[in-house]
Amino acid sequence: MRATVFHGTRDVRIEEVPDATLREPTDALVRVTHACICGSDLWPYRGELLIYGENGRMGHEFMGVVEAVGAEVRTLSPGDRVIAPFAFSDGVCEYCSAGLHTSCVQGGYWGAANDGGQGEAVRAPLADGTLVKLPDEVDLSDTRLATAIATLTDVCGTGHHAAVSSGIGPGGTAVVVGDGAVGLCGVLAASRLGADRIIIMGRHDARLDVARRFGATDEVRERGEEGIARVRELTGGGAAHVLECVGTPQATETAIAVCRPRGTVGHVGVPAEPIGLMDVYNRNITLRGGVAPVRAYIPELLEDVLAGRIDPSPVLDMTVSLDEVPEGYAAMDERRAIKTLVAVS
Amino acid sequence: MRATVFHGTRDVRIEEVPDATLREPTDALVRVTHACICGSDLWPYRGELLIYGENGRMGHEFMGVVEAVGAEVRTLSPGDRVIAPFAFSDGVCEYCSAGLHTSCVQGGYWGAANDGGQGEAVRAPLADGTLVKLPDEVDLSDTRLATAIATLTDVCGTGHHAAVSSGIGPGGTAVVVGDGAVGLCGVLAASRLGADRIIIMGRHDARLDVARRFGATDEVRERGEEGIARVRELTGGGAAHVLECVGTPQATETAIAVCRPRGTVGHVGVPAEPIGLMDVYNRNITLRGGVAPVRAYIPELLEDVLAGRIDPSPVLDMTVSLDEVPEGYAAMDERRAIKTLVAVS
Repeated sequence: MRATVFHGTRDVRIEEVPDATLREPTDALVRVTHACICGSDLWPYRGELLIYGENGRMGHEFMGVVEAVGAEVRTLSPGDRVIAPFAFSDGVCEYCSAGLHTSCVQGGYWGAANDGGQGEAVRAPLADGTLVKLPDEVDLSDTRLATAIATLTDVCGTGHHAAVSSGIGPGGTAVVVGDGAVGLCGVLAASRLGADRIIIMGRHDARLDVARRFGATDEVRERGEEGIARVRELTGGGAAHVLECVGTPQATETAIAVCRPRGTVGHVGVPAEPIGLMDVYNRNITLRGGVAPVRAYIPELLEDVLAGRIDPSPVLDMTVSLDEVPEGYAAMDERRAIKTLVAVS
Repeated sequence: MRATVFHGTRDVRIEEVPDATLREPTDALVRVTHACICGSDLWPYRGELLIYGENGRMGHEFMGVVEAVGAEVRTLSPGDRVIAPFAFSDGVCEYCSAGLHTSCVQGGYWGAANDGGQGEAVRAPLADGTLVKLPDEVDLSDTRLATAIATLTDVCGTGHHAAVSSGIGPGGTAVVVGDGAVGLCGVLAASRLGADRIIIMGRHDARLDVARRFGATDEVRERGEEGIARVRELTGGGAAHVLECVGTPQATETAIAVCRPRGTVGHVGVPAEPIGLMDVYNRNITLRGGVAPVRAYIPELLEDVLAGRIDPSPVLDMTVSLDEVPEGYAAMDERRAIKTLVAVS
């Protein structure tokens, strides 16, 4: 089969790899219909974070059709259309039961030595726990709807995790740091959770347009000290709820700085570098969040997507074929696309 | 008057300084009876953190007797015995009203350019908001009681803040990282808040003895990876509530590592150096805490001290006169004392 393989900085290729197959009785074999390229895929792509060795398989966001299931799979059958969250999980351990599927005692991530999502098929371990079946009536030939559903594999749930972690609720004010796909989904999530005022920090016109469609009420285009001063002015000293959706030290320090004393920063950006915490300490800021337990959030978010109450599809503003995946990476790297959908089959 | 003055690394001296006087109508003039040397005083003492310039005044933990009050002071009179938290605050702003006195819009800290606590007298700004009056019946000639009350100026409330921030409550399990005075007060606070099991990480016999008296049920003397493995073994994968009472990167990383996925680290150690947050991210650990709003906690903790329900006095295991303050610093620096009380007058 064909899949995306990492070779080095800015060098990903579509290559022939061994076919995905069932290995464990709890596996499902999924033919991928849609995959996405994630902002975090750009880290190894740019050589900033070595999470893939040479020949590592790429992609952790996909949906598709079940082709075969192992003997112990009880809830899925060939032909079922399924969404995969970016981590697999058994669904029954202490952590899964508590909704923290990313800490599953048997869990793991797609890609690297496992099949990656950006390919023709994937062996999905712990299929009953991991995969979410789409209702039969969902029409995936509706491109907008399929695109919206594809965001549930990661970004929509990750933005939601930032919002939930920040504690934003009805009537509150939230600041969203970052206008990437996750930040935009954070705006959508804050709005869905009832925020009255949502301030997005970013500076790309197309992305800020999406932010406004998603519910942002204010935008702050300045960065660094100037941006911090502007948010503090808008909020009378900082917001009680801040969504950190980037992960760099600068973004994290900005998120902390625009947070009100005793406020909460809900963070989902990968914190690859150490962070100074003196401002956190001096003003008793709470840092809450981390890798999003997207599996836990798919049911409620899917329900809202299917009911038309939210539409996260605009964050996927480019579509490529599997062969064009390298161009999809380049477009995101060069900020020509917010996020790329891969129409695999 | 005489007071403690910073001159450089391991060089603090008792010197003649200008007399403390009333300056603002909201000031009180306090004659110091008892002061303490804080673990955080050791940071400038050791040259590790430059918070005092040459000739900076030292000490932020003191209690004493009101000698005079400004025209606008309403709740205090000469002769009142008062406890001072380590930060002054107006008691009426948004943050003070919410119990976060360390973020008071008019507030500040003792020492440096203000009078320090380790001296004969202090000008106390915002006296009505800052100082807590002791009931008339309290007998400060009871040395144990006076010592216990002296801890309310900082360490007792700071350990309490670590415990509250960690979310520990009835029946829970807490891990306390650090066997200094704050860590020991953290043990006491966790016990007071109802913890069933309290694991102290430390390795000094005398301190672990105090920890047991304060309610610790287990002790882990190993450090680093070995200590982490031991706590994880004791707790089946980490505790939901961890009190970080040191502030160094090693201690903070240990606190995070012994925390259960989605658990909370209540931190009160000064985080002078940047901290790696990948483990926080991967396991969704919450970091909550910071500089303790000790003023908010004094009333409830004082009530328990006066009723004999808690006795934090053992953390002050050395007493010196004002002239002997340099020896008090040396004893703490060399770990001959957990914490030093200065009997000023």
